[in-house]
Amino acid sequence: MTKPTLTLTTDFGLSDHFVGTMKGVILAICPEAQIVDISHDVTPFEIGEGAYLIAQAYRYFPKKTVHVVVVDPGVGTARRPVVMEAAGQYFVAPDNGVLGMVQAREERAKFRAITNPKYFLKEVSTTFHGRDIFAPVGAHLAAGVPAGRLGKLIEDFFKPGFDKPHREGKRTWMGRILRIDRFGNVITNFHADEFDLALHRFQLAFGPVEVTAVAKNYAEHGSGELFAIKGSSGYYEVSMSQGSAAKKIGCEVGAAVELMVW
Amino acid sequence: MTKPTLTLTTDFGLSDHFVGTMKGVILAICPEAQIVDISHDVTPFEIGEGAYLIAQAYRYFPKKTVHVVVVDPGVGTARRPVVMEAAGQYFVAPDNGVLGMVQAREERAKFRAITNPKYFLKEVSTTFHGRDIFAPVGAHLAAGVPAGRLGKLIEDFFKPGFDKPHREGKRTWMGRILRIDRFGNVITNFHADEFDLALHRFQLAFGPVEVTAVAKNYAEHGSGELFAIKGSSGYYEVSMSQGSAAKKIGCEVGAAVELMVW
Amino acid sequence: MTKPTLTLTTDFGLSDHFVGTMKGVILAICPEAQIVDISHDVTPFEIGEGAYLIAQAYRYFPKKTVHVVVVDPGVGTARRPVVMEAAGQYFVAPDNGVLGMVQAREERAKFRAITNPKYFLKEVSTTFHGRDIFAPVGAHLAAGVPAGRLGKLIEDFFKPGFDKPHREGKRTWMGRILRIDRFGNVITNFHADEFDLALHRFQLAFGPVEVTAVAKNYAEHGSGELFAIKGSSGYYEVSMSQGSAAKKIGCEVGAAVELMVW
Repeated sequence: MTKPTLTLTTDFGLSDHFVGTMKGVILAICPEAQIVDISHDVTPFEIGEGAYLIAQAYRYFPKKTVHVVVVDPGVGTARRPVVMEAAGQYFVAPDNGVLGMVQAREERAKFRAITNPKYFLKEVSTTFHGRDIFAPVGAHLAAGVPAGRLGKLIEDFFKPGFDKPHREGKRTWMGRILRIDRFGNVITNFHADEFDLALHRFQLAFGPVEVTAVAKNYAEHGSGELFAIKGSSGYYEVSMSQGSAAKKIGCEVGAAVELMVW
Repeated sequence: MTKPTLTLTTDFGLSDHFVGTMKGVILAICPEAQIVDISHDVTPFEIGEGAYLIAQAYRYFPKKTVHVVVVDPGVGTARRPVVMEAAGQYFVAPDNGVLGMVQAREERAKFRAITNPKYFLKEVSTTFHGRDIFAPVGAHLAAGVPAGRLGKLIEDFFKPGFDKPHREGKRTWMGRILRIDRFGNVITNFHADEFDLALHRFQLAFGPVEVTAVAKNYAEHGSGELFAIKGSSGYYEVSMSQGSAAKKIGCEVGAAVELMVW
Repeated sequence: MTKPTLTLTTDFGLSDHFVGTMKGVILAICPEAQIVDISHDVTPFEIGEGAYLIAQAYRYFPKKTVHVVVVDPGVGTARRPVVMEAAGQYFVAPDNGVLGMVQAREERAKFRAITNPKYFLKEVSTTFHGRDIFAPVGAHLAAGVPAGRLGKLIEDFFKPGFDKPHREGKRTWMGRILRIDRFGNVITNFHADEFDLALHRFQLAFGPVEVTAVAKNYAEHGSGELFAIKGSSGYYEVSMSQGSAAKKIGCEVGAAVELMVW
């Protein structure tokens, strides 16, 4: 039997004991689990960033992997914990849209409201559901508990709209910045499956800054020059050779990007 | 047989090779170990912060877990390495008080001075006992070596006084800030088992800033308003809805907090 | 059979999904792997820093450990991926010198160009070879694939010169700063096997700042005083008791250090 894999994506950071404590809870329930950190540096409460990160990573994990995703501004309020089954994997999270970008790619995704307290810690705090609900539920799934025992199927799960640009005119679409990575690459929500910038003359406008070149690799353009490139995520990114495109543009996560095509 | 779990809490950071190297030492001795990071972002040499973090996390780990805690301003001097047995677990650390907050909760904690060099690396440097002493001792414990082989029981281990507020008057206690977490929550050393702020009118004073409200969850108060809340640690924290209480107060770890109760 | 250990050293940081995704790829190929992070905080594109970090860590890992090292400014260009066999371990990296400091210590190191796409992901992007080439190749090695299947032995691998000071005169050598660690210790490339500062009067000069004292442990000198000390790496470091030597000196990675000996 293969060892179960469980991933964690949170906005808890690595400085505090929060993530280590969740791992203690998981190993006490499922000692064989292979635990993998996707990221704990989601900007606090930024549900869209968490949604993007888990959507990039999950496809590379083995079947039956359990992904625990906790970006949860509503902890302690009435928002539900849910489990999503999709792509042969499990996703445990608050029902606030943080699974939205995985769900958008996986047509057969099924959601359950997690209502069975048998799989929580005995004492549930109002402030740390990552430790008290999401970690133990994920660990029980990893240990083989069927998802059906957690709660009933639901249809009215929260459906956000992070990742689709809106058509503004015949030649223009309005998108947004999904993420700025460590290298300063600016990841837009224009996906290469829908927009092929190599086939057209185009312009990506971040306010007054315009990008009109497209590249196949990071070393193709001279340093200091901005260019679009199909990123490893499938989304177009704006990059600069050996420098930070985000600093050059002066932009932030969530800001608008206009695409014009001829 | 369950796989042994070993945790690491240090002030080594994650940028250098220090933590990775300790894990290499551990796996060379105990290849089956599940290694979990609690935190490596303890402020360098801040023994009290390390003490707080491991005290928050250990209870959630399985029996027989080995916790290696290295916050060690005295590395290379005569301070002793010790192993503490408490709560069915092992704690390996320098004898400088970093285990003090666990010991304060666990009446039956037993300490041994680690004197048997058989369980160290062959070559012990004067600068990196995390690699040369604490990691290999922890790994041997995880692999099943009885604690008694490491050295003799001692009574004169170092006993610090981090976590107890001092009574100042009939209605006033003087406490301190134990930790400021990633979200800007200010964790005090007033524990809810001893102080129940929901039962009284009270005031928590950080210099000129006074907090008089108490909440049950983070979303209960409007944004910008400071309130006390029983944290997941059991200690009262001062928080602000979707903002940093620490920034609003302008405070630092170690600073004084006065509690007044009517 | 012992579980295979695989380490990761990159400049990808921990904020993005990059490292987590590589681990998904690895576990899908080799579910038994013990994955250890050496560091993901190599300064972006700083090959020398990556070379230093893996050279410090590898000796402490078990035989057959697979080290995946990705600091790769040339991703998407013609630079080759290579596997090095040395010290009974494997090292998978781009052929850009990032393995140079391990190779300099291991006379029998053998290099192979990795050319067999059978061990890559099916779809290889131009931007993320860590995920598409280096992680899967490392995982196949950890799972037992013989290195010979990856490609042929080569002699013309890239040989950098990071770690050797140059002799400048009868009594003087010119070295450089290899790394500044979390504590502000300044690690030079003067190795204690070649230079024994305890035997001589000496002077280490960082521009106008001169260091003439040597210590056996960090607590030996008063606070605020700079001193040289043989670091856990074997290289001389310049340190300051309970403070940052790097801040006091005002220096950066890569800067020159002159040694004068009487």
